[in-house]
Amino acid sequence: MGVITLTTDFGLSDSYVAQMKGVMLSIAPESSLIDLTHSIAPCDIASAARVLAESAGYYPDGTIHLAVVDPGVGGARRRIIIQAAVRTEIDVRPKRAYFVGPDNGIFALAAPALARERVWEIQNHHRLPRFESGRTFDGRNVFAPVAAMLSNGVPASELGSEIATPLVEAEIHAQPIKVDGILKGHVVYFDHFGNAATNITKSQLGAGKVIVSLPKQSLTLDLRQSFEDFRTGEPGCIINSQGCVEIVANQQSARKLLALDAGDPVHITIG
Amino acid sequence: MGVITLTTDFGLSDSYVAQMKGVMLSIAPESSLIDLTHSIAPCDIASAARVLAESAGYYPDGTIHLAVVDPGVGGARRRIIIQAAVRTEIDVRPKRAYFVGPDNGIFALAAPALARERVWEIQNHHRLPRFESGRTFDGRNVFAPVAAMLSNGVPASELGSEIATPLVEAEIHAQPIKVDGILKGHVVYFDHFGNAATNITKSQLGAGKVIVSLPKQSLTLDLRQSFEDFRTGEPGCIINSQGCVEIVANQQSARKLLALDAGDPVHITIG
Amino acid sequence: MGVITLTTDFGLSDSYVAQMKGVMLSIAPESSLIDLTHSIAPCDIASAARVLAESAGYYPDGTIHLAVVDPGVGGARRRIIIQAAVRTEIDVRPKRAYFVGPDNGIFALAAPALARERVWEIQNHHRLPRFESGRTFDGRNVFAPVAAMLSNGVPASELGSEIATPLVEAEIHAQPIKVDGILKGHVVYFDHFGNAATNITKSQLGAGKVIVSLPKQSLTLDLRQSFEDFRTGEPGCIINSQGCVEIVANQQSARKLLALDAGDPVHITIG
Repeated sequence: MGVITLTTDFGLSDSYVAQMKGVMLSIAPESSLIDLTHSIAPCDIASAARVLAESAGYYPDGTIHLAVVDPGVGGARRRIIIQAAVRTEIDVRPKRAYFVGPDNGIFALAAPALARERVWEIQNHHRLPRFESGRTFDGRNVFAPVAAMLSNGVPASELGSEIATPLVEAEIHAQPIKVDGILKGHVVYFDHFGNAATNITKSQLGAGKVIVSLPKQSLTLDLRQSFEDFRTGEPGCIINSQGCVEIVANQQSARKLLALDAGDPVHITIG
Repeated sequence: MGVITLTTDFGLSDSYVAQMKGVMLSIAPESSLIDLTHSIAPCDIASAARVLAESAGYYPDGTIHLAVVDPGVGGARRRIIIQAAVRTEIDVRPKRAYFVGPDNGIFALAAPALARERVWEIQNHHRLPRFESGRTFDGRNVFAPVAAMLSNGVPASELGSEIATPLVEAEIHAQPIKVDGILKGHVVYFDHFGNAATNITKSQLGAGKVIVSLPKQSLTLDLRQSFEDFRTGEPGCIINSQGCVEIVANQQSARKLLALDAGDPVHITIG
Repeated sequence: MGVITLTTDFGLSDSYVAQMKGVMLSIAPESSLIDLTHSIAPCDIASAARVLAESAGYYPDGTIHLAVVDPGVGGARRRIIIQAAVRTEIDVRPKRAYFVGPDNGIFALAAPALARERVWEIQNHHRLPRFESGRTFDGRNVFAPVAAMLSNGVPASELGSEIATPLVEAEIHAQPIKVDGILKGHVVYFDHFGNAATNITKSQLGAGKVIVSLPKQSLTLDLRQSFEDFRTGEPGCIINSQGCVEIVANQQSARKLLALDAGDPVHITIG
């Protein structure tokens, strides 16, 4: 029984996700369908790419990740299958994963160039009945049946033609830079709790006491190990579960409390 | 392993859906529970009927569709099982589906009169322990156990008494009418993206160039094949994945951009 | 195939739930993962405790309930496994259930002291690779793998050390009191429809006609059997599906209609 995950910007109030699941269960009744999220903001490819990158390494070997944030549907963008080696921060051996969706950068973080083993452009080798019947819902007409057939063991080579041309890459967030001994990064995104993740990773911090300063907020924060090391509502920094420096306010929203915006500068000095 | 789908207006923050799933898994542990949606607005039977109609044809033969948007719970409305032949726009052979829920019109679009094979009014033949114990949550007490027993292979004839009397029908949206060569329809609903579906179907359009006009907005729109055939934010029309004329604004919300309301007139002329 | 339920305050837009599900499916690929809810307000342990208590009794024998509303993550609070006997209002025999999560009161209503059979404090006997690697996401690093191993049949005694010390108990809502023949309770919570549940249970009502009065709203309401026994929008009372007195307004939100707040007094006299 293979796992197929779904990531879309379809929300949960329309029938789009329900239709895709019906298509997949009709083809691969034994597959296990797991929602990563359907709450991606409309057309926000970058956020979908991040959620896929944060999640894929935790799934079983052979998992198929179907992702449809696809503003270019019906246009010239390619429809692809990627076979890649994914891992989490602690895995010695990578796992094999498949990604099915549009070639628009949505897989560029979960399956970056170095992790890709093979890539196919989806063709209608199996004469999928809706493949060309509409040009507005490839999620249901193309990607769902392809993911389900992969889950059934149909080789990707029977579902598409292997390609070697470059894929669309994601706009990678600028890396932090070091100026006069200060590591300069910025706020990248906020989670549901209002925690603010930055583009500064644990591995970029040196030894010694880390002092985080927020120039816009004129604030200096300590880096500690967990939320609990701060008083309730006290702003501070931790290393989050993805390995990045994160601005938090124990049991409250750092975003609201500090009036943080995406892109706000975050400077780090090692004391 | 049979599929049981769920459609309710219960939302996902209370325990109502969780209780129903527990009841079903206790009776039919091998069943596969799939949410169509729980985001139907409270008591909005018409929207639930639409989501069921859009989805049912894509599910495997034998799927059981449980739907509970039930403002009449505890009252005189009947509790029913429908066996029907459902299909999508391209299926040669229909699939068999079962629908379990209140007789209030919720199945009238997914299983209209012509598609119905047999109908039963649910009776407590199996002495379900909560059948009469409460009158406020038939979803958990009656419909969930009945759906689970159907999934286990219990014949519907053991769960209810076959009836031949008419069911409650949905209020069908007025069909578009043709006046002086102009096809006059209207906006029926908006999806999560702000696309506006109309009651005009592809089959009602003639040959020739289609011009769509929105009298209230004093606007004329082209009908093209996909979102990508318009510039970003350019309003236009496509045939949506259900086969209906839909007003869109590539990567933006046509609803907001054009200040559209449900019921707004949509006129079509063939050039 | 065992059932593992999930209850968190993580929402559905981030990847936290997706990561936990990946971890569990990697360890226990045959387990069936069921969301109770992920819409608990951040850090609202009491609401999570209520949802678990309302749901657990309906699930199959042996179900594992994973719950992560964990403001104390990384701190001194214990991580526990509870084996308990759960039941619903009509069950003759209880079912066995397991609860995995923080010792912060989240299981105090679903598995109260009298229902607990055994309790273990989770230890890293299996050398889980992420057990100590981070202190901000025990849901993924500790609770998810422990729940999955339990589902695989690993005995709790191999995942933790049995403890006999008291657990953190929930703050139980004050019971209604009887003063001069009047039963005095209050509004406890609102569901998605705006129905207002109180802390007065069916068993506390005597024989005779029940009159419910809302002193703050200067209103008197009848207790009837179901929503349908009131006109649309007419405020009234029913016994809800949990066995509690509930203030409703047929097909409308009693919360809005009557401007109800949590804690509002509800008085009952038997006529």
